[in-house]
Amino acid sequence: MAFRILSSDVYLPQYPWNGDDFDLYLGLEKGTCRSKYAVGKRYIASGEESALFMATKAVKGCLEKADISLNDIDLLIYASGTHHQSLPYDAAAVLSQLQAPPSLASFDVNSTCLSFLSALDLANCLFKANRHQRILIVSSELGSGITLNKFKKPRPEVATLFSDGAAAYLLEAKPDAYGFHGALFETHHEGYQCCQIKGGGSNVNPHKTPYEDYLAACQFEMDGKSLFRHIVNVMPKFLQRGLARAELTKNDIAFFLPHQASYHGMVKLPKLTGFDAEKIVNNFHELGNQVAASLPINLHLLRNKHAGSDKKVLMAGSAAGLSLGMGVITL
Amino acid sequence: MAFRILSSDVYLPQYPWNGDDFDLYLGLEKGTCRSKYAVGKRYIASGEESALFMATKAVKGCLEKADISLNDIDLLIYASGTHHQSLPYDAAAVLSQLQAPPSLASFDVNSTCLSFLSALDLANCLFKANRHQRILIVSSELGSGITLNKFKKPRPEVATLFSDGAAAYLLEAKPDAYGFHGALFETHHEGYQCCQIKGGGSNVNPHKTPYEDYLAACQFEMDGKSLFRHIVNVMPKFLQRGLARAELTKNDIAFFLPHQASYHGMVKLPKLTGFDAEKIVNNFHELGNQVAASLPINLHLLRNKHAGSDKKVLMAGSAAGLSLGMGVITL
Repeated sequence: MAFRILSSDVYLPQYPWNGDDFDLYLGLEKGTCRSKYAVGKRYIASGEESALFMATKAVKGCLEKADISLNDIDLLIYASGTHHQSLPYDAAAVLSQLQAPPSLASFDVNSTCLSFLSALDLANCLFKANRHQRILIVSSELGSGITLNKFKKPRPEVATLFSDGAAAYLLEAKPDAYGFHGALFETHHEGYQCCQIKGGGSNVNPHKTPYEDYLAACQFEMDGKSLFRHIVNVMPKFLQRGLARAELTKNDIAFFLPHQASYHGMVKLPKLTGFDAEKIVNNFHELGNQVAASLPINLHLLRNKHAGSDKKVLMAGSAAGLSLGMGVITL
Repeated sequence: MAFRILSSDVYLPQYPWNGDDFDLYLGLEKGTCRSKYAVGKRYIASGEESALFMATKAVKGCLEKADISLNDIDLLIYASGTHHQSLPYDAAAVLSQLQAPPSLASFDVNSTCLSFLSALDLANCLFKANRHQRILIVSSELGSGITLNKFKKPRPEVATLFSDGAAAYLLEAKPDAYGFHGALFETHHEGYQCCQIKGGGSNVNPHKTPYEDYLAACQFEMDGKSLFRHIVNVMPKFLQRGLARAELTKNDIAFFLPHQASYHGMVKLPKLTGFDAEKIVNNFHELGNQVAASLPINLHLLRNKHAGSDKKVLMAGSAAGLSLGMGVITL
């Protein structure tokens, strides 16, 4: 048993910022963010566009496209690297917004930017084990909330990195469909410190921490150089192992869709991985890094262009953890 | 393919509070918390006993008991209802503490108090799909951090509810083992508002919220009466459906291990479910509600008493969501 994608949909905030907006915000000369940080557009959620709001919109759109009701869905997986609130878990929040019937199971899965790939891998195994017939996956991220704060303006390369948005996918069990192949995940502890938000959990309790220290702990911290150095060392062989596991070669891959982690990383990919530049999906200029929503939003755009084709897409990336993940799917 | 439990271990904070300690903290007459709120013991973590610290201790103990190294494990699932920190995800934090080899995959799963059951269900399907050979699951909870704060002392029934701790399980694929049967999960949106911590995620941004309001948002809120009323209505038929799915009757079950949600709920269970009181595991007096660590800690205590038996244990409970979950395992 494998699965096919029945439908997908995305939600992007209504009023994006452009490079000039970031120049103004950061006090930089006009044109700097566009030319130096590849900011064409970044989707910055307004007050009402919470992660939950965006997730719910994407799920509704996805169900409408497939003309399937929630009564016919077995499971909702909320696959995101950041949370809407601490408790309950966010899949339950989406089901509450949708007034869903109690027949749906639900849980959150989190492997930061790889959460959607982890959810696809789990869905694939749930179908293989005949556990479910139809599964919804939703990823929703509000990355701007952890960088664009008044307390301490981050460095321009961090401030311009994230963009908000959500994507939802409806998967259905199907014996002869392609499913998800070559799924491979690794966690490299050497990179754990490279990307962090220390607040928001039990480790830094706002009730026991001075206010300013707590605000600082709720900012996104990144040591981009160490992160990049490690990924450059390990990613090429990682991709080879995953493709070998899927019994595929680079020639079988129509599109290489990397997690849109950073502009710096994206432009190095052809040389680093050996994939032709025209096979590599690069929407960093228009979308930025949308955390766990990045891969499914970019996959949705690919599906819109190549609807109904059985072209194979290699999705891969790195995530705060430091983790690597990959897998191959058809459009 | 199914699985057997190779080993399990727990970590409980070193200096528990007793009923008198809670009386003193809450300014109540000596003996009140013991008699009225069933407080024999509550494990309250000290400063160094973070959720990450407890999780790492439990995993180390679990591996030592099985005499298996991390090189022989494929996946670590961190299955908890609260987070250690916002980013990276907590499974990566545990692997970082353990200096684990990169061959392990990892992710967090969260369905609040049912997270361990969700992880068992996923592990079962991952084994069935021949995706992994050995999986570690760890649940670690610091519930005291969301109730015992100076800002606003909660009502006694909430203040005395939670207890901290962690549990780890090592599972191995085995064709003729029992695995996890009758897994059933439902999400009832009517109960979403009943248990909440609104802070800690992107919905209530500490940078955009007045300090006192943010502290209030990081407290645990519960409408116990509405919650209980809903659970009483839906739980009996839910258990019947799950047992039917597992092709089991109540007579096949040696122990009914409920999530230790509340004393009030525990004492009603024999009448509500039809299980004999002596079959029902009730350690609420000594352990309180340990959120997602409750079921695995209590299962570990059962395993210690009945090691090597193939007795069937029905685990079931409700969780903030509002979700119901159940499944049957052997010791």
